[in-house]
Amino acid sequence: MPEAPPTSIPPAVAVVGRGLVDPGGPVVRADDLGLTRGDGCFEGIRVVDGAAEDLDAHLDRMARSAAGLDLPFDRAGFEAAAAEVIAASGAAGVGEASLKLVLTRGPEHDPGHPTGLATLAPLTEAVRRARRQGISVATLTRGWAPGAFDGAPWLLGGVKTLSYAVNTAAMREAARRGADDALFTDAGGALLEGPTWSVAWLRGDRLTTVDPAPHGCLRSVTTDRLLADAATAGLTPALGAGTVDDLRAADLVLAVSSVRGGVEVGEVDGQPLRAADTRAVGWVRRHLAGRWPAR
Amino acid sequence: MPEAPPTSIPPAVAVVGRGLVDPGGPVVRADDLGLTRGDGCFEGIRVVDGAAEDLDAHLDRMARSAAGLDLPFDRAGFEAAAAEVIAASGAAGVGEASLKLVLTRGPEHDPGHPTGLATLAPLTEAVRRARRQGISVATLTRGWAPGAFDGAPWLLGGVKTLSYAVNTAAMREAARRGADDALFTDAGGALLEGPTWSVAWLRGDRLTTVDPAPHGCLRSVTTDRLLADAATAGLTPALGAGTVDDLRAADLVLAVSSVRGGVEVGEVDGQPLRAADTRAVGWVRRHLAGRWPAR
Repeated sequence: MPEAPPTSIPPAVAVVGRGLVDPGGPVVRADDLGLTRGDGCFEGIRVVDGAAEDLDAHLDRMARSAAGLDLPFDRAGFEAAAAEVIAASGAAGVGEASLKLVLTRGPEHDPGHPTGLATLAPLTEAVRRARRQGISVATLTRGWAPGAFDGAPWLLGGVKTLSYAVNTAAMREAARRGADDALFTDAGGALLEGPTWSVAWLRGDRLTTVDPAPHGCLRSVTTDRLLADAATAGLTPALGAGTVDDLRAADLVLAVSSVRGGVEVGEVDGQPLRAADTRAVGWVRRHLAGRWPAR
Repeated sequence: MPEAPPTSIPPAVAVVGRGLVDPGGPVVRADDLGLTRGDGCFEGIRVVDGAAEDLDAHLDRMARSAAGLDLPFDRAGFEAAAAEVIAASGAAGVGEASLKLVLTRGPEHDPGHPTGLATLAPLTEAVRRARRQGISVATLTRGWAPGAFDGAPWLLGGVKTLSYAVNTAAMREAARRGADDALFTDAGGALLEGPTWSVAWLRGDRLTTVDPAPHGCLRSVTTDRLLADAATAGLTPALGAGTVDDLRAADLVLAVSSVRGGVEVGEVDGQPLRAADTRAVGWVRRHLAGRWPAR
């Protein structure tokens, strides 16, 4: 975790089907399978002036995650819980905030009662700093064999599960190496994704991100939108494969996620990346600064 | 999950540092990183006539898991919580029960306050049935490249994390294939472990289990003990590597875990395994029946 947020509790928490609860109080049982098995899925969503950005696309992805876990998904219930925490937090007046939706399989000893939660929290200073300064990354293997996800849906490729222990361990390892974040590769050296973001790189007019399905990566709502926006500006969006060498040869490298937005990657494994001075780089930088303000 | 246990709540829950709580009530906050990131570790321990079996070895392993996650471990606090749930549940009078210890990184917005829980639950009928009848397994890839864990501690090999979404998805996939449980292999076909147990196979007088460290497997407290017991009976315990072919050629194949104990694997991928009629097989079967009664 990059640093402690400014408050000791999130400003608003709602339980799906039950409504707002005390944000500092307990809401989940000790035998909830989300807790004991990381058995569930989630979404992180940016809230701007009280509106959840790309909410439909996030709910679509959450529906796919739930299906991948054989969990029912109460879309209307999550929409209501999201609206409740946004309203309760006063997020409409505070600019940006971070909305998290969590779905678990529910209590082990009371089967068939999934847990649904919505939590609203303020944006951390680390997010704004990353937008201002960019980030450095350390590449770390995720251990996957190339092609591991072919015909292996139980590996939950593309499912945004709650089982992020390796993701957070990788972030701590990156910090030990003096980097701001980790970037996963597979055992063959193919780029995958960050622990909480997807990678994109610009070379000439081509803006490429890792093709999620064959790599077992999460399909990024925000990268999808960034690529679509880039296409309207005359850039060529692409899903593909790459290695660290592609990042070193790129004109610009981005780490993209919903809440933090698109931020520049300025260093890989201790070596600086040099952004090129092209028209495309200029467009991307203006686009990032416009969509994800650093202050 | 094999099936619903007979009660809708576990009989006893304690929070480390706080004591017994309502087992049907909420104990964990919505922003607990154990819930939102599967960021923590656990132990499952068999309780027999009120005594937690191999408690010290389990607490030793939990200490190693916590260290692997850079989490502090309040051993005395967990010992006290375990004693509380055992006493409160009346487990001393009911034969066998299942004790779970859970440690998480705690609330995201209140850093530095790990969550510790102890839960006691009755043994499920599925456990006793597996002891009586053995189990069938479906082999599934875990996606790891051979050697993936060498020099990659952030992959958390040997750490019993809460991030078990793939483990539970594999159990559902096994059920879809008509098997009782899954058995993971790496991408090169090497045997790894089950989602919640370790595998051992007997050939002649040699009882082998997968060498955990190079394979990123969990070191099994119960398999360690079984191998030690086997050595006292003149068998040769071994840590090694194997494939499905080794299981097919074995005299006896076991799935070993703390609560369920050692149970026979009678079928792999739809094909029966034939247990041999050797002195060693006889000793192992008597040993299993004595330690882990089926009724």
